[in-house]
Amino acid sequence: MDEIKELAAGVIRTSKELSDGRIIRYYDTHGQRRSNIDTRESAEQPGIGELRLDPLTNEWIAVSHHRQGRVFLPPKELCPLCPSTQSLPTEIPESDFEVVVFDNRTPSLRAPQGDWALPDLAGPDTDMGTAAGKCEVICFTSEHGKSFLDLSPQRVRTLLEAWIDRTHELSQLPYIEHVTPFENRGEEVGVTLSHPHGQIYAYSYIPPRVSLMLAVAQAHHERTGNILLDDVVAREIRDGERIVARNEHWVAYVPYAARYSFEIHVAPLTSVADLTQLSPAAADAFPSIALEVMRRLDGVFNIPMAYIAAWHQAPVRTGRELLRLHWQITSVRRAPGKLKYLAGSESAMGAFIMDLRPEQSAAQLRDVNLV
Amino acid sequence: MDEIKELAAGVIRTSKELSDGRIIRYYDTHGQRRSNIDTRESAEQPGIGELRLDPLTNEWIAVSHHRQGRVFLPPKELCPLCPSTQSLPTEIPESDFEVVVFDNRTPSLRAPQGDWALPDLAGPDTDMGTAAGKCEVICFTSEHGKSFLDLSPQRVRTLLEAWIDRTHELSQLPYIEHVTPFENRGEEVGVTLSHPHGQIYAYSYIPPRVSLMLAVAQAHHERTGNILLDDVVAREIRDGERIVARNEHWVAYVPYAARYSFEIHVAPLTSVADLTQLSPAAADAFPSIALEVMRRLDGVFNIPMAYIAAWHQAPVRTGRELLRLHWQITSVRRAPGKLKYLAGSESAMGAFIMDLRPEQSAAQLRDVNLV
Repeated sequence: MDEIKELAAGVIRTSKELSDGRIIRYYDTHGQRRSNIDTRESAEQPGIGELRLDPLTNEWIAVSHHRQGRVFLPPKELCPLCPSTQSLPTEIPESDFEVVVFDNRTPSLRAPQGDWALPDLAGPDTDMGTAAGKCEVICFTSEHGKSFLDLSPQRVRTLLEAWIDRTHELSQLPYIEHVTPFENRGEEVGVTLSHPHGQIYAYSYIPPRVSLMLAVAQAHHERTGNILLDDVVAREIRDGERIVARNEHWVAYVPYAARYSFEIHVAPLTSVADLTQLSPAAADAFPSIALEVMRRLDGVFNIPMAYIAAWHQAPVRTGRELLRLHWQITSVRRAPGKLKYLAGSESAMGAFIMDLRPEQSAAQLRDVNLV
Repeated sequence: MDEIKELAAGVIRTSKELSDGRIIRYYDTHGQRRSNIDTRESAEQPGIGELRLDPLTNEWIAVSHHRQGRVFLPPKELCPLCPSTQSLPTEIPESDFEVVVFDNRTPSLRAPQGDWALPDLAGPDTDMGTAAGKCEVICFTSEHGKSFLDLSPQRVRTLLEAWIDRTHELSQLPYIEHVTPFENRGEEVGVTLSHPHGQIYAYSYIPPRVSLMLAVAQAHHERTGNILLDDVVAREIRDGERIVARNEHWVAYVPYAARYSFEIHVAPLTSVADLTQLSPAAADAFPSIALEVMRRLDGVFNIPMAYIAAWHQAPVRTGRELLRLHWQITSVRRAPGKLKYLAGSESAMGAFIMDLRPEQSAAQLRDVNLV
């Protein structure tokens, strides 16, 4: 039951089913036909996990105990995110691909059976829920040894189109409240597969950090009538000294109160709720600033920087006028031989200690010589 | 200007000044006289850092940019937390000690000059503050190669008395809002000195996680009239299956909604706001459960577990009837060769995914054979 759909920027999406019923979606720009069949035996799908409320913080914790056995840093020749070969069928049945998205084989969150609702909050007496949601994997390229910053501008545009498409479709599911596309890069942040890829988590609850940001944006709006991120971006542009890169539609800055030595936020100059609302012009202007930012990050110490890059979007059903799209990139490296750890103050108390002035960090990022 | 003070449990505190004006406090139980002078040249004290409000979350970030050059995993013979020798004067001028506390040489937070106040919250226009507070180092033993679990019960009692004393004194400072004694153990959580020690952070603001916990406890009290932690502990005791250890005055459990595979909370059965309110009987009963919990933790995989162990206390001036003392121990290890990383979901969204059912974790901890 293949399905073909035309997206923006000349991207064609072909959806197919893997042998175990999971869906794979190819995002192509060269008229490829995707006809290869998944030849692997159908594997049993893992069960759905639990959602438990931490009564001390009113935060949902997903318990996905079936994930302990997942693949851990396999050698290149066994990479499940490379294209399939005659001898090794992988997650992607085709022999080549541009951008591809498929359901995670060991998802933390998965589609619920039948009707689903989040249990009511009742402190320590809150009922246990099931860990509804969706977890998808997104591969940026078929080339195993590359990184985001090696992608062509056209490929980044295709990737953005795939993120837009996933945000759009996942937002339609009745049990989804928030969609977060993100990339973890580097073993230092726990990456278990080195092939360039990201993930898309669609949560059935508003993630704790988004709840907090929404409450703060709401209070700011009540106090000033303004959209918080608009005021934040205006201040960054006014101050100037923390700007890292800029083009006609986007600005990248080390935020005034960064938590990490190398933290960069990238925001569209015309704010929108989520990726689906980006104008075609803003979407087309994203690859150049995204690639510049990633090259500056790797240029600071001339080593591949471990980072988490996450799209912050408004929730699906609430706060859409208050929370606005931006891309937060945080590196855990603070010096060539040193990482930033979340220890007692950060982890137990949530109180971040930053080792570098954000203005100094921005100057180091600007000083990188891009050849 | 030495000062000698008698504390509980037969502990005598002797306070002295180091050559650069920092205070060192010895907690002794054998009538030691502390007369050695710090022979090091007086070093310049670093300046005070900045407090910046993250406008997206209304959280204070301390920027302590003078800390980048701090000592990083020195070899044993250069350990600054060992007793002084003829050839190497360390942070502790004496040739031996039991428990000792001194001001951190490169503190993230330090005493402000003159009057001090936290700037008013005004979104992106919030003024920058100075990073007021206190950071102290606490050494558990003079023996470099030991761990918390190697301490004698009497030594743990002395350590607890030092934590009580520091909580009491730091709470008197007009600019302190919260006191957090904690221990980071293991290079996996960023420990830069392997000598068994902890830290005490006294914050001039309520740390973000405490703010959140206070708001949740307040809402629970309004809804039920109950103290939240009392209800949580009652539920853990009722459920039983997550209890790890217990004595007449304390209970240790893997919380119902643990964030980490090996996370243990230790709470007194009669709840109190902070360490200073513990009854003598509860204080005397702490060493046995603390040592048992730490031995069970190291016994799960028969390797030293990297962990963060933090005392959660009520703030100094607010919420003292709502937030209650407990000790949270979180290990970042989830399997012998695997760590738990805070990647996209946890770090960017605050949405924790747990790999193990807390009941399974508690069973593994209970099954450890303590010889």
